[in-house]
Amino acid sequence: MTAYDPDNIFAKILRGELPSETVYEDEKTRVIMDIMPRVPGHCLVLPKAASRNILDIDPSDLTACVHTVQRMAKAVKAAFAADGVTVQHFVESAGGQMVFHTHWHVLPRHEGVPLRPHSGEMAPAEEVKANAQRLRAAVSAA
Amino acid sequence: MTAYDPDNIFAKILRGELPSETVYEDEKTRVIMDIMPRVPGHCLVLPKAASRNILDIDPSDLTACVHTVQRMAKAVKAAFAADGVTVQHFVESAGGQMVFHTHWHVLPRHEGVPLRPHSGEMAPAEEVKANAQRLRAAVSAA
Repeated sequence: MTAYDPDNIFAKILRGELPSETVYEDEKTRVIMDIMPRVPGHCLVLPKAASRNILDIDPSDLTACVHTVQRMAKAVKAAFAADGVTVQHFVESAGGQMVFHTHWHVLPRHEGVPLRPHSGEMAPAEEVKANAQRLRAAVSAA
Repeated sequence: MTAYDPDNIFAKILRGELPSETVYEDEKTRVIMDIMPRVPGHCLVLPKAASRNILDIDPSDLTACVHTVQRMAKAVKAAFAADGVTVQHFVESAGGQMVFHTHWHVLPRHEGVPLRPHSGEMAPAEEVKANAQRLRAAVSAA
């Protein structure tokens, strides 16, 4: 397995070297908005500790992540009046991983609305900021 | 949220009323082969206790599931010499869920090989059986 690269963009975000829209944080995890969302409200659950993906993550970080995923699944459903939720974790490029710090995608879903392809296109910053705000309110209200 | 239906097919499999290719089992979880695999080796991690999805699962069952997902991610990678792994959890129809007992998809991935669409077509039983056998051997060896 390739070694963890501490200069990946999520590591930089966690160290405060790059900006992000953070919507939730606890001792072991942090949730940020995906800036290339496949649907509005698409967020990412990250462990704060270094790991590449589920193959090398520490078991206690993994536990913390999935409980934050549960919290965020409820929050995206409430915040965006979603009919469902899709949760994804990608391992290595062949599995769909693009940033090599462990992360879980949490996507609010609506009947008949497909996920946009991963275009690499950034959403307008105001849109991401507004969705982050809705999500923060839903997490606080839970 | 819709109530849990104890007559869903995974509940029947867990009660032994329907057959399955089980590849791993512990106190709280069971892993079976997907009989409509999107790639060879596609397996499903189920909590033994009743829940519809991540929105209503008991936290201890959720923890158990994700640790079995970790175990199976390593196992599918080893068993199928995979380059990566894709992990998915679908919540309600809009999120992609088709059977309403909590389950996690674990899919071995190879560079350049896309997932087949969810066609609803069953794989030949001998093929599923052979892949189950490879996966059991990898889980035991881990």
